[in-house]
Amino acid sequence: MARQPTLEFWYEFASAYSYLAASRIEAAAQEAGVAVRWRPFLLGPLFASQGWTTSPFNLYPAKGRNMWRDMERCAASQGLPPVTKPDPFPQNSLNAVRVAVYGQDQDWLVPFSKAVFATSYAGGKSIAEPAAVIAILDSLGLDGTQVLKAAALDANKTKLRVAIEEARSRGIYGAPTFLADDGELFWGNDRLEQALAWAAGDRPPGLR
Amino acid sequence: MARQPTLEFWYEFASAYSYLAASRIEAAAQEAGVAVRWRPFLLGPLFASQGWTTSPFNLYPAKGRNMWRDMERCAASQGLPPVTKPDPFPQNSLNAVRVAVYGQDQDWLVPFSKAVFATSYAGGKSIAEPAAVIAILDSLGLDGTQVLKAAALDANKTKLRVAIEEARSRGIYGAPTFLADDGELFWGNDRLEQALAWAAGDRPPGLR
Repeated sequence: MARQPTLEFWYEFASAYSYLAASRIEAAAQEAGVAVRWRPFLLGPLFASQGWTTSPFNLYPAKGRNMWRDMERCAASQGLPPVTKPDPFPQNSLNAVRVAVYGQDQDWLVPFSKAVFATSYAGGKSIAEPAAVIAILDSLGLDGTQVLKAAALDANKTKLRVAIEEARSRGIYGAPTFLADDGELFWGNDRLEQALAWAAGDRPPGLR
Repeated sequence: MARQPTLEFWYEFASAYSYLAASRIEAAAQEAGVAVRWRPFLLGPLFASQGWTTSPFNLYPAKGRNMWRDMERCAASQGLPPVTKPDPFPQNSLNAVRVAVYGQDQDWLVPFSKAVFATSYAGGKSIAEPAAVIAILDSLGLDGTQVLKAAALDANKTKLRVAIEEARSRGIYGAPTFLADDGELFWGNDRLEQALAWAAGDRPPGLR
């Protein structure tokens, strides 16, 4: 039996469009017959390399204004609750991303990630403080305090640094990003369908 | 009889995704029952206000690399010829934009604009020099030399400046941008369908 094609989904809790992608990737991937590997990472270090000290949506106010309106429209189209803009935006996602990287390939990674996104973009609550991350873990039946402690150990910090360098070396510069088995890169929630089709072997005419 | 809804299509010849939008907006708008008003403008002054001296696709190399691959994929999906990357990119579009602004609401504006885009992104030829713009105009049966001369008069330069300020004041920060009759702004070729639906009165649930 042929191996099921896989799409890597690189996401960041501070990224609003990662939330939209996280909300719909499972159903879309199932329909396309593609497995998804969730890959949490931190955007901050990649943005810093580009000379950005915060989100481009903050750096460029006109772009930011339309982005939040676009989020409202897209969330409504996807049947999601009204979007709550995190305050401050972007949220410091370090604790949550560390936990997600610690949970890489664990069965709780996806529910945890979706809960963090919902807390931030639909619940209007902070995800920055340790207590916020612990509460989300606890709500999933995990020992939040214990998991956060393990996620803060040096071994896991290294794992996160390696993930960030992997992102950089594979050409990632924003989130969400989708990577097919052959390394083909698709950037942005708007490219989810193209990425799944590519992963499933369905290429645009004339392209390899 | 009710007035047909209109969508303004703000585009720039130096913008690669404006080319993709220009190639498909007529058919898509007809299907949606929406009239399109083509609005040529210059992005450079708006980028300069954001501190950019060139295209963001040049400023951020990883972003630029994926953008050209994305263009290849999207063009293939739209059934367009293989994309030729203008050299240099972006092309100096001042002469062509001046002519388009001069031709605002003339029946040759759309064929001229599509010909400029095709020359730049499918023909692999320059659109920067006066001679290039004249040749395109001539190929449409116009007197290219005469039109270019009229487009370079002060009155038309002022018309272009006013268009750029209108773009800025209406929240435009990139191209292509679509503006509905009520001022709702949609940025990017990926938003064409949403913009047409909005213009036709079809809003996402719960949104006004």
